[in-house]
Amino acid sequence: MAVSAGYRALDEDSVLSVAAPFAGDGPLTAAEVGDGNLNLVFRVSGAASSVIVKQALPYLRVAGEAWPLTRHRADIEWAALDVHSKLAPGLLPEVLAFDESLSALVLEDLAGYSTWRDALIGGRDIPGVAAEVGAYCARVLLGTSASGLQQAERSALQARFGYSELCGLTENLVFTAPYTDSPTNRYDEQAAHLALAVRRDRSLRSAAAELRFGFKTRGEALIHGDLHSGSVMVDPGGKTKIIDLEFAFFGPAGFDIGLLLANLAFARLAHEERGNHAYCRVIDGYAESFWCTFTDESRRLWSPGERWHDQFLATVTADAARFAGLEMIRRVVGLAHVKDIDSLPPSQRLGAQERAVGGGRALLLGADCTTFGALWRRAIEEDSCS
Amino acid sequence: MAVSAGYRALDEDSVLSVAAPFAGDGPLTAAEVGDGNLNLVFRVSGAASSVIVKQALPYLRVAGEAWPLTRHRADIEWAALDVHSKLAPGLLPEVLAFDESLSALVLEDLAGYSTWRDALIGGRDIPGVAAEVGAYCARVLLGTSASGLQQAERSALQARFGYSELCGLTENLVFTAPYTDSPTNRYDEQAAHLALAVRRDRSLRSAAAELRFGFKTRGEALIHGDLHSGSVMVDPGGKTKIIDLEFAFFGPAGFDIGLLLANLAFARLAHEERGNHAYCRVIDGYAESFWCTFTDESRRLWSPGERWHDQFLATVTADAARFAGLEMIRRVVGLAHVKDIDSLPPSQRLGAQERAVGGGRALLLGADCTTFGALWRRAIEEDSCS
Repeated sequence: MAVSAGYRALDEDSVLSVAAPFAGDGPLTAAEVGDGNLNLVFRVSGAASSVIVKQALPYLRVAGEAWPLTRHRADIEWAALDVHSKLAPGLLPEVLAFDESLSALVLEDLAGYSTWRDALIGGRDIPGVAAEVGAYCARVLLGTSASGLQQAERSALQARFGYSELCGLTENLVFTAPYTDSPTNRYDEQAAHLALAVRRDRSLRSAAAELRFGFKTRGEALIHGDLHSGSVMVDPGGKTKIIDLEFAFFGPAGFDIGLLLANLAFARLAHEERGNHAYCRVIDGYAESFWCTFTDESRRLWSPGERWHDQFLATVTADAARFAGLEMIRRVVGLAHVKDIDSLPPSQRLGAQERAVGGGRALLLGADCTTFGALWRRAIEEDSCS
Repeated sequence: MAVSAGYRALDEDSVLSVAAPFAGDGPLTAAEVGDGNLNLVFRVSGAASSVIVKQALPYLRVAGEAWPLTRHRADIEWAALDVHSKLAPGLLPEVLAFDESLSALVLEDLAGYSTWRDALIGGRDIPGVAAEVGAYCARVLLGTSASGLQQAERSALQARFGYSELCGLTENLVFTAPYTDSPTNRYDEQAAHLALAVRRDRSLRSAAAELRFGFKTRGEALIHGDLHSGSVMVDPGGKTKIIDLEFAFFGPAGFDIGLLLANLAFARLAHEERGNHAYCRVIDGYAESFWCTFTDESRRLWSPGERWHDQFLATVTADAARFAGLEMIRRVVGLAHVKDIDSLPPSQRLGAQERAVGGGRALLLGADCTTFGALWRRAIEEDSCS
């Protein structure tokens, strides 16, 4: 990958000059706070305020420099934040600046926020978040779909947000690698039988391949592309911000929905293993609130002349169920895991992993789930596999 | 629409200089031979050979200058002929030259050929054509789909063949106008009840709207986009050429299949009204041969690693059934009709129109047809409506 003349990886010193115009008066300090796989993330603090600087690295951070990636994803994130912020005002962090040559975004610091994943793992009940995420999905999916845009505008957006390098990463890690003996797969030794069963199941592999074709070809809307619970920032009062839009592209509307629900299911499986049954009910409520807000808001935004909203929802639900199935499998036997499950003690962890793969299998192979209730039951109850 | 400096509509004099380098020695003569709606078509003949010059007009010819169209479709046709000719060698006319400023293609003259539609109307049995068209579909659909191309190559093709102005024309004439009281609709007075019934049926309108969304968003392959029996040229020996690629774009794979089968159904309905039952059996054989060659060839070309060919075929069939339903309706109550039916005497014509709309309705609303046999029975038997 060619590194442009102006590009250099930032450090806690060099990031100060990037942030200075936005971080307020007085001496600045910087700390690297990223825990992601793709980027450097710095918090730069002045006397009275702070900002975040997020810089794309020219390689996949978790894999080191051996897995090069272009920095084009920073341009995608910047452009997608712009489109989504207009459709869902207040639900995304404010962009203060974008330095294209450094591939660095200067963003509002979401001080006091944590990821929704951490809140879920901690068993904290934060009302309103699930509904906000549902509203976000409805607004961006409807606002960028064929029903919400004039053709010329849609064509321009599609040209800007085509299938990207990170889509190829998703394609590999979600749709392909878990169903082969790819060297990128990673799993606990005690879960090796799950990985083997997934790899040996031709019906799973062909279902995944079919979905991969849809992922690559069905440019229905400008989707987030990586909408798990770690891409949702929440504050204790329920304020919600959606982050990490570098995977955004024109893809199937059900993909974001499916990923989000699968990640709620992980939280629930983990709490069930821990015996926190009351909090499981809370998560059930989140899933339902997410879905109901999505459906209500999408009905409200639907073009009145288009009399097929029910079919749209049924298709999105069936797609979401199958994408959720892929996510539930790959987070156990593929490269990237979830903390909800990995932080469990070994015996509970195995229980949750077995149920995640079982639920994922049921979602992926089951007859179409065209209602939310069927999807959610299948995700969280191994018994419903059939 | 801006007309470029070099553009002028050709006539039987001015076309001679365009064709001269390709039409052989000696004095040339030209005749306008087009019967299409979008273009001027000249045959330019020399002493020993002849060529075709096809020029895009800056308006929709059938509607006059009141319906402007850009000439970009000539670039699309030229580029699509190039892509499809490489995938299906011998099945498309040879391109001798393309004059971009005139939007004019100089093409191999298919002397001795007629349209398949005329052969069908004339009751001529030309073995081999149906299989050739099936092979063409398989080769271009598989060769340009996510399964047949590397991503970079596919992205480049998708950028070149996005949703075009002519796609918008199809969108309007196939998916929208017949289900409204659009002034572009055109039908026999004796068929007014059919048009009214189509317009008043909300279930038809919403099914059409759902399919329109798929037409606009499912960029599965570089499809022909207008594959009716008049886009297939045949010679008495069974040689087959696919023409008129200006509607080509990245769309759903089932669209071409559905249109072709609907147009075979028109031929069959017309012959049944005329009492030519033996020729109906011949057409049944064509439909089956088209389908079987398509499926066999697509199986042969399928990537061995992708174990979901059966699901692919089931999806293509279900999509084709519904697109065929739209075509059967719009060719009776929309702007563009088919000669198969319009050339019947009035009473037989009404019979064929009623059955076309009935079959179309059954295809559009019926439960998914996932086999060819179910699709074809529903297209040709009004009784199967349910």
